[in-house]
Amino acid sequence: MMQTLSINDSQRLQLAPLVVPSRLLLGPGPSNAHPTVLEAMNKPPVGHLDPAFLAIMDEIQSLLRYVWQTDNQYTIAVSGTGTAAMEAAIANATEPGDVVLVGVAGYFGNRLVDMAGRYGGDVRTITKPWGQVFTLDELRSAVSTHRPAILALVHAETSTGARQPLEGVGELCREFGCLLLVDTVTSLGGVPIFLDEWGVDLAYSCSQKGLGCPPGASPLTMSQNAVEKLKRRQTKVANWYLDMTLLSKYWGSDRIYHHTAPINLYYALREALRLVAQEGLASCWQRHQQNVEYLWQGLEELGLSLHVDRQFRLPTLTTVRIPQGVDGKAVARQLLLEHNIEISGGLGELAGKVWRVGLMGFNSRKESVDRLLEALRQVLP
Amino acid sequence: MMQTLSINDSQRLQLAPLVVPSRLLLGPGPSNAHPTVLEAMNKPPVGHLDPAFLAIMDEIQSLLRYVWQTDNQYTIAVSGTGTAAMEAAIANATEPGDVVLVGVAGYFGNRLVDMAGRYGGDVRTITKPWGQVFTLDELRSAVSTHRPAILALVHAETSTGARQPLEGVGELCREFGCLLLVDTVTSLGGVPIFLDEWGVDLAYSCSQKGLGCPPGASPLTMSQNAVEKLKRRQTKVANWYLDMTLLSKYWGSDRIYHHTAPINLYYALREALRLVAQEGLASCWQRHQQNVEYLWQGLEELGLSLHVDRQFRLPTLTTVRIPQGVDGKAVARQLLLEHNIEISGGLGELAGKVWRVGLMGFNSRKESVDRLLEALRQVLP
Repeated sequence: MMQTLSINDSQRLQLAPLVVPSRLLLGPGPSNAHPTVLEAMNKPPVGHLDPAFLAIMDEIQSLLRYVWQTDNQYTIAVSGTGTAAMEAAIANATEPGDVVLVGVAGYFGNRLVDMAGRYGGDVRTITKPWGQVFTLDELRSAVSTHRPAILALVHAETSTGARQPLEGVGELCREFGCLLLVDTVTSLGGVPIFLDEWGVDLAYSCSQKGLGCPPGASPLTMSQNAVEKLKRRQTKVANWYLDMTLLSKYWGSDRIYHHTAPINLYYALREALRLVAQEGLASCWQRHQQNVEYLWQGLEELGLSLHVDRQFRLPTLTTVRIPQGVDGKAVARQLLLEHNIEISGGLGELAGKVWRVGLMGFNSRKESVDRLLEALRQVLP
Repeated sequence: MMQTLSINDSQRLQLAPLVVPSRLLLGPGPSNAHPTVLEAMNKPPVGHLDPAFLAIMDEIQSLLRYVWQTDNQYTIAVSGTGTAAMEAAIANATEPGDVVLVGVAGYFGNRLVDMAGRYGGDVRTITKPWGQVFTLDELRSAVSTHRPAILALVHAETSTGARQPLEGVGELCREFGCLLLVDTVTSLGGVPIFLDEWGVDLAYSCSQKGLGCPPGASPLTMSQNAVEKLKRRQTKVANWYLDMTLLSKYWGSDRIYHHTAPINLYYALREALRLVAQEGLASCWQRHQQNVEYLWQGLEELGLSLHVDRQFRLPTLTTVRIPQGVDGKAVARQLLLEHNIEISGGLGELAGKVWRVGLMGFNSRKESVDRLLEALRQVLP
């Protein structure tokens, strides 16, 4: 024992038990969790190799396949937030020297560029102004020019509120022998996705948006083609924590210890997915669409205009142009501190130009919209 | 909308709400969380840039400095489990070509070897049989032979239950101009640690052991020397999610968005750390030591023998030799399924040879020991 050294108490804060404000989270995520999701999360932890926990993992895998509409065997939740799942997709797909073509029309496209570079990818980009999307012809032209090993697109760009159509992109990728990697962070659970029909090879998401769960356990899926590329690698995946060759032995029938999963978050994720399955995907998507259209109408009645063309707008996230002369940050701060409603500002090219309003998962409800519109009426000059 | 495609319901499980068994977790982690920690975790999420959340982050940083006994500015919790924090330490410290000398006397030493290799480290090892520790002379000889940029040691080897003494190792590293990286996954909160006094440059841990919190948010700290090496890098950190140059701008005063933190786990971690500060480190360490000595005595009275020499035994984790002729796996299974007590088997060299019994955080109590000993009396042949 080292009791001869004396303990330094300078950082020994004496705190009261935690009190957090009750916010309505209508930013780009996290969104509020359904009360039964919090209840599930609150159950005492069991071990990460407990048969009771392994059964929960199996249920999560099935339900993730359902919400993504895929049969991919390699469908898991990564033990981190959405960015970790993004990194898992990149790390497992990319070998040094691979040409990775990224569609950049927002902040998260740029993040993919940065990440793929760190894994040794030879990164090329195709770009659009933030808020627009790529046409199939534009993608065809870029793929035939760059001949990538991986085409990476953002299905739902959280920084702009635009939905990238994916019909036909899978066929294009098969024609050129490349993998299709898709960011579904802000679409899973709230926006129609048909991963297998669309021929997507790698996708990732998060728990705290369309699924209405707290953040920390993030969906990842890989097609058979993506798994075969992984198995053919000449180099180890350059990330131990997110290496799917190791993770698949824990999530698969081998049950080989890899790391201690965030047990309670998996409880929560299982409950969030259970609720989606109970509601049914079609109803869930329809609910998101109906509520966002109600929001758009209300915002327009307040004289506000929306940043994205109607046909490409996400049902989960809306970008609202900040009117000339209005201090966007001050409005958001007032909504938060006086009305307990969180909305968010823009990122990158859209910083200072838009607010971002999310209606996701449990929060996609008419009452959320009414509460926001009422508060905006009071706060806007 | 893609409503023309029909939804496949084959993986749409119809599940009942979650029921989990109530286990006493006396394996190598997770351990049970204190009831008020679960209560704190259960509060509704706020946003990751909410002033209320930023205040929680600051409190966590101070309290982590207290439990580690360090003044390191770069002291945060990583958004993943302990393995992610391990990877963060390696990724931020290692540049391609750096000589990384790893002390391997158990499973987690080997994991450090694998990880450091993935980050381009020129990895060298010094080894000991599992359950033993390195002397300062052995470390001096290895450091002077290999002249590493980083010496990586496991303070508390979770696979063996051995405590690596660290007195004098920091001076040795400074003499040879290398950084000292230390795994404190199974020591933080339960075993005396004086990070600054010992001259440790990088350390990491987890939440679900000595701190008695659910898994998913994991402490990481870097000394000024380690930060300077990070700032001098010629290459980007080869891991976006765990890049401390980005993370420090979120945890520091810039508050620049990096990723969505697992909000509720930070609530839990704040409460777990609050409880340690309330109890006081000296009392907390003493409690762990007293309860483990009570366990050792009870196990010896049952005729069982312990794997590690008494002077190097961890107060948090004990390896118990499985008696000849006893089916270790069957005993653990029976404890779990008939007595709701989790203990664990050995890993690697010790697989089939030992059980691992943890007494950590909230679970380091006389009642836990009594319940285990009583169950062992019934289960052992």
